[in-house]
Amino acid sequence: MSATHTLASAVVRADAGDLPAWTLHEAKRTLVNMLAVALSASANSGSRILLDWAEGEGAAPRASVIGSPLRTSPCGAAMLNGFLAHLQDYDDTHFPTVLHPTAPVWPAALAAAEERGASGKDALAAFALGAEAACRVAMSVHPWHYEMGWHITGTAGVFGAAAAAARMLGLGADEANMAVGIAGTFASGVREVFGSHAKAMHPAKAAANGLQAAFLAERGFTGADDVIGGRRGFWEVLSPNGHSEEALLGGFGERWELANNGLKPYANGVVSHPIQDAVIALRNEHRIAPEDVEAINAEVSPLVLELMNRPEPRRGLEGKFSFQHCAAAALVDGAGHDAQFSDERVADPVIAALRAKVSAVVDDTLREDEVRLSITLRGGAALSRYVEHATGSPENPMTDAALEAKYRSLAYEVLPAAQAEELLAAVWELDAAPSVEKVARLMAKQAAS
Amino acid sequence: MSATHTLASAVVRADAGDLPAWTLHEAKRTLVNMLAVALSASANSGSRILLDWAEGEGAAPRASVIGSPLRTSPCGAAMLNGFLAHLQDYDDTHFPTVLHPTAPVWPAALAAAEERGASGKDALAAFALGAEAACRVAMSVHPWHYEMGWHITGTAGVFGAAAAAARMLGLGADEANMAVGIAGTFASGVREVFGSHAKAMHPAKAAANGLQAAFLAERGFTGADDVIGGRRGFWEVLSPNGHSEEALLGGFGERWELANNGLKPYANGVVSHPIQDAVIALRNEHRIAPEDVEAINAEVSPLVLELMNRPEPRRGLEGKFSFQHCAAAALVDGAGHDAQFSDERVADPVIAALRAKVSAVVDDTLREDEVRLSITLRGGAALSRYVEHATGSPENPMTDAALEAKYRSLAYEVLPAAQAEELLAAVWELDAAPSVEKVARLMAKQAAS
Repeated sequence: MSATHTLASAVVRADAGDLPAWTLHEAKRTLVNMLAVALSASANSGSRILLDWAEGEGAAPRASVIGSPLRTSPCGAAMLNGFLAHLQDYDDTHFPTVLHPTAPVWPAALAAAEERGASGKDALAAFALGAEAACRVAMSVHPWHYEMGWHITGTAGVFGAAAAAARMLGLGADEANMAVGIAGTFASGVREVFGSHAKAMHPAKAAANGLQAAFLAERGFTGADDVIGGRRGFWEVLSPNGHSEEALLGGFGERWELANNGLKPYANGVVSHPIQDAVIALRNEHRIAPEDVEAINAEVSPLVLELMNRPEPRRGLEGKFSFQHCAAAALVDGAGHDAQFSDERVADPVIAALRAKVSAVVDDTLREDEVRLSITLRGGAALSRYVEHATGSPENPMTDAALEAKYRSLAYEVLPAAQAEELLAAVWELDAAPSVEKVARLMAKQAAS
Repeated sequence: MSATHTLASAVVRADAGDLPAWTLHEAKRTLVNMLAVALSASANSGSRILLDWAEGEGAAPRASVIGSPLRTSPCGAAMLNGFLAHLQDYDDTHFPTVLHPTAPVWPAALAAAEERGASGKDALAAFALGAEAACRVAMSVHPWHYEMGWHITGTAGVFGAAAAAARMLGLGADEANMAVGIAGTFASGVREVFGSHAKAMHPAKAAANGLQAAFLAERGFTGADDVIGGRRGFWEVLSPNGHSEEALLGGFGERWELANNGLKPYANGVVSHPIQDAVIALRNEHRIAPEDVEAINAEVSPLVLELMNRPEPRRGLEGKFSFQHCAAAALVDGAGHDAQFSDERVADPVIAALRAKVSAVVDDTLREDEVRLSITLRGGAALSRYVEHATGSPENPMTDAALEAKYRSLAYEVLPAAQAEELLAAVWELDAAPSVEKVARLMAKQAAS
């Protein structure tokens, strides 16, 4: 059997009842996280443009769009939800490869589940296995592929989307291999578009292409027999400097890449996350107000100064690349959501004054997820905090409670509180639900509750 | 200005009135050819699967599909028509790069023209300039890119589709650059899928992605500033072994790559085209019947035996890679359309008997488009023919009359004769038409005539 066929078979043949319980819980957590960040992203101008285009194209109203009253086709919904899930760079991260598995995979699985009336548990299993496939494709070409300039979320993501959709449609192994064999040739997305709307189109198209491929394969449409390992396939063409079949296939179902997937507590680059953890912990424990602060000093890993040393950010997006702003906003607001990176918050005089009091020195022995930080108060007292592993890293995952807090702070921006709470409860109960209908209905903007 | 911006500007700023008249005529010829091969392809089972999927997705009925009663969204129509245009490998070929420019570019331009009520001449100009952009992107990475395993029709095609659509929507230079900057990150399609339905999905997606990008850019959506030349852009990521900015931009509007684009008289690989030319010429001049033939002997370029030496093809598709079958079918039927490569024609006893009488020897001094061929008749008389440049090569383009014959033989399979003739006339008159409406209406299967 070819590499592609082996992977596709493993995804569609796994018994949902045999999956470790934690994988289904993790699938729920990624869904909560996706709904949170996608709801928040739905108010963005780029999202409105894409939704406006989709409304113009028109479609059979068969699938739901997060934070929108629009109902559209399954592939259309997969595209829109994939875009929303990634737009704010606030989705999950597979730490070894920087793949964001949820944005391409969940929207494809969810639209297919909605279309076919699949049970909640089957949808959770399809995501877990599809995400595993995406992460394994990413691992198989890491680090060569990303270093070439590929955005791995788009390129590896389409394999996971196709595999998850194939499973959700109930395809057999050969048909699933064809689904992946059709979708895999559309692996695309270059890092040159980072900083533009087109970046979030990578998982958007990956989700839609994966789902479309599964629908076509179900009807007998053909693709390559081994789109990953073939002579002119994914490995040779998109990762000519190296690949690993062992990383793709070894121990599937026993060793889980999904375990290395983390949820972000803050809507900015991960290297300043330990700083934000330390500031928020001290702020909350000692009820520190901005006017109490004389200085914030941190000892950090080298990457903080290399990537995020921007003492005077001018716009919201620049704030995401300023450790000074991340620290100051964390002290003032106690958070690091997208709201803390608006143009207004970056221009806020209280935050700006505090930013000027933030400094950092490099300690080469510190890892990226580690920090030693102290806050000097007026009068001279100093409070210190050591963070060994930042929240959201595989060694220190966000707790369910912290995830719920993130969800509420973002979902409440868009949905009525009662609906947001009902949606959250529906996700936590999804493994017992006869279908995904309730989640799909409640995630839409004007859904009846 | 970046390489991408320069190219996009050149496409949208050119004055249609300044284009050489032959470019608009060539645009009509490629449209006639596309309609012919797409109509023929519309009966294929792969086409029916894709159309069935599209019907299920649903869409606003705003654009026409070749050979189908379905009306769908502009991007949906671009995808379907792009698929139909390429499925039989019977579309046009840019000889220097083996890019097939029509399949990704015309469907995007046509759907945009239909949507916006553009004049026929503007649509022709948008195709000519978009095809030129696609050919130039292809030239800029030739031969490195194709040798890596990329299917250049998908990868370079999306740039032409976006540029043509941007022009058709009336975008300014900056917006057009964004359209290309959104579309270009979806450059994709690996050669591993050759021989499957997914191959024709490359221009299909290129057409749809290019058109969608133009619609999004028109509304303010952003992509990369220099998706072709940027540090993590098309050149560096998809052609790391080399590229040429001169080939992309030099002499735009003066030197035309469109001049190197040829139309195929036969639905099989080009290397046996001179054989078919010679056989058909002798057959017609001397009214040769199959039972008259003792032997067909050809002196050929080395590639004929390397690529097409298959004395006993078993299936229609194998017949396309058998010079013996090409020659035998040419003598029996006087043609080499898709109909000559059906499973039935390959199994036909008269053709099979004749195939056994076909032989070839290599002459290293002959080019690919050259042949010396003789037919020995029963009784011993021999008739010879030398073909210097096969029909369809840049040095010996198909005449308009030969193109019309190809069109009729394919279009009549699908459309009523009167409608097919009316459609042909509408294309020849397109430069004077106030819109593309007549062509769009007549190319559909159940259009009122």
